[in-house]
Amino acid sequence: MDNALVHGGDWAGFEAEYGTLPLDFSSNVSPLGLPPRVQKAIEQYLPSTGRYPDPLCRQLRQAIAAAEQVDPDWCLCGCGAAGLIYQAVLAKRPGKSLLTAPTFAEYEAALALVGSKTAYWTLRPEDGFLLDEQFLHMVTPEVEMVFLCQPNNPTGRTVSQEFLLRLLSRCQAVGALLVVDECFCDFLEDPAAVTMKGFLREYGNLLILKAFTKLYAMAGLRLGYALCSDTALLAAMGRAGPPWAVSGPAQAAGAAALQETQYVNAVRELTARERPLLSGALERLGFQVVPGEANYLLFFSRTPLLEPLRRRGILLRDCSNYRGLKEGWYRTAVRTHSDNQRLIAALEEILKEEST
Amino acid sequence: MDNALVHGGDWAGFEAEYGTLPLDFSSNVSPLGLPPRVQKAIEQYLPSTGRYPDPLCRQLRQAIAAAEQVDPDWCLCGCGAAGLIYQAVLAKRPGKSLLTAPTFAEYEAALALVGSKTAYWTLRPEDGFLLDEQFLHMVTPEVEMVFLCQPNNPTGRTVSQEFLLRLLSRCQAVGALLVVDECFCDFLEDPAAVTMKGFLREYGNLLILKAFTKLYAMAGLRLGYALCSDTALLAAMGRAGPPWAVSGPAQAAGAAALQETQYVNAVRELTARERPLLSGALERLGFQVVPGEANYLLFFSRTPLLEPLRRRGILLRDCSNYRGLKEGWYRTAVRTHSDNQRLIAALEEILKEEST
Repeated sequence: MDNALVHGGDWAGFEAEYGTLPLDFSSNVSPLGLPPRVQKAIEQYLPSTGRYPDPLCRQLRQAIAAAEQVDPDWCLCGCGAAGLIYQAVLAKRPGKSLLTAPTFAEYEAALALVGSKTAYWTLRPEDGFLLDEQFLHMVTPEVEMVFLCQPNNPTGRTVSQEFLLRLLSRCQAVGALLVVDECFCDFLEDPAAVTMKGFLREYGNLLILKAFTKLYAMAGLRLGYALCSDTALLAAMGRAGPPWAVSGPAQAAGAAALQETQYVNAVRELTARERPLLSGALERLGFQVVPGEANYLLFFSRTPLLEPLRRRGILLRDCSNYRGLKEGWYRTAVRTHSDNQRLIAALEEILKEEST
Repeated sequence: MDNALVHGGDWAGFEAEYGTLPLDFSSNVSPLGLPPRVQKAIEQYLPSTGRYPDPLCRQLRQAIAAAEQVDPDWCLCGCGAAGLIYQAVLAKRPGKSLLTAPTFAEYEAALALVGSKTAYWTLRPEDGFLLDEQFLHMVTPEVEMVFLCQPNNPTGRTVSQEFLLRLLSRCQAVGALLVVDECFCDFLEDPAAVTMKGFLREYGNLLILKAFTKLYAMAGLRLGYALCSDTALLAAMGRAGPPWAVSGPAQAAGAAALQETQYVNAVRELTARERPLLSGALERLGFQVVPGEANYLLFFSRTPLLEPLRRRGILLRDCSNYRGLKEGWYRTAVRTHSDNQRLIAALEEILKEEST
């Protein structure tokens, strides 16, 4: 498999094979589509395409700072949160780093680029893929960078603010940067109870990553941002790539998206309503479902699902290429009720075929 | 000055200060604006924004390969040519590298990121900023990477294919990668006489960079590509950043732009017609003008021009922050006839004020 295709969302490969687009449960993007206000902002931007994008993203950063209630100088915009992961790693160049397994694959890919020696803490199914005290002991004095995805991808599990705060203090004590990836945080029922935003001022070693990608169905535009009170670190991250990482359409769209509070509430309500329904249906089909809290669910199946679903026009995320997960683990997005029903019906069919 | 503002094109800073947009001669983008077909392609793309962009840019690479008449596997798309410069440097990690001075600043910035020891060959005004034989001798066995901008930015000068071929052979002999940045090549009157494309197959150590940015007035969209027959190098470049470097709008726009042959001809004709007129007018005003061949001109002025032009609503590129250039060097884009006349009139006014 091509290295660029380790993630879900390969609709283009499907389209090349089948000539149509799939129903995509393999990437975790809001199923409500691009908010109309955002689409309009991009259309209004288009006559300005000839100009280089503002390298400092001045207007967008002001808007983000207002929405997040932080200092605009604490905000760096990037080409998706994924781009910022590479910039953070290139700026920090950690000799030793610490990750959970499983987690989002780009942390490991970025750390490999600078030859970081990476330790992995394996999250086990029998523990519900949850972190425990032992993880704090892994933050030894040699560790320079820790990534934690909250809620974790692909498990959807969160850890408490209280635990994260202890981790943050421990990182500070050893001089490590803690990167908390909150890209899926706004899909949670109560993001405020989970976000570490409130600790930015006190802890210069805290870097929070967020994205517009998923929440506003803007995956195609590439827009994310980092929040950190260590402005020297943000400046070093800025130097770790070209000045124009964020395109003009992305800047225009981002500023408009931040006004979409109703849209965000609708996405959050949809997720809260549909996730338990989907989870219950998957369990009734006999799958082992991890009690995730985000807009996706990790589950285990003894029956291979990828190809049979693909033949039915549905993409699912095969998670067997996540470090720490074996064959049989799949991740599904939580989509609209009718989409989810289509998935369940297809799975039922596949299991029935399998058993005959 | 903020590190991100070392280049021209800071219309956003001007807008923040004056409340209007400037007439921008500080970035070298086609003055004919976004081609209508490209704008339409982006508009048609927008409903697909929820999908991640194809990480492999399959359709776009097919279109580029057809237009450039190379193998699609020899093509890697990136977030502007600038993004690809960083990916190339991160993939190659040269211990020692070689640059001309002056040249495009991002080569040096990217090389600094990996701690490369960089040698500079100073192009001198008295030599018309041209390369000579001595440059070949700088390619010592320790050199692992050479960047050459063709036509050079900010001088607009080109070197012959014959000279470049000797440089390429020399690089091959010592095991160095030669990166030829042809981002402004298509603005030349006869790009075919200058491009090194024909040597890709024979020389795996040749990497050509091109961009949609300037030629199609798409600077806001961030789209460039690298051509190289060393597919392992392209794969390593791909791993030097996140899988989704090229946004959906950029992919849609790029494929549409490649059909704009009439537009490209119009840009090339405009440049060929206006450059000598602008150059002549600048010389008549007493400036020393470098005989560039691209859509921009480097010239020297004893009178400071930046602020007086800015007050008149015009941005010019102050080149004093280019390594190898001192205060007094400016770069102007070649724009439409009426735009250029506005620039000349403003310069006349400034010189008149200065002399009274």
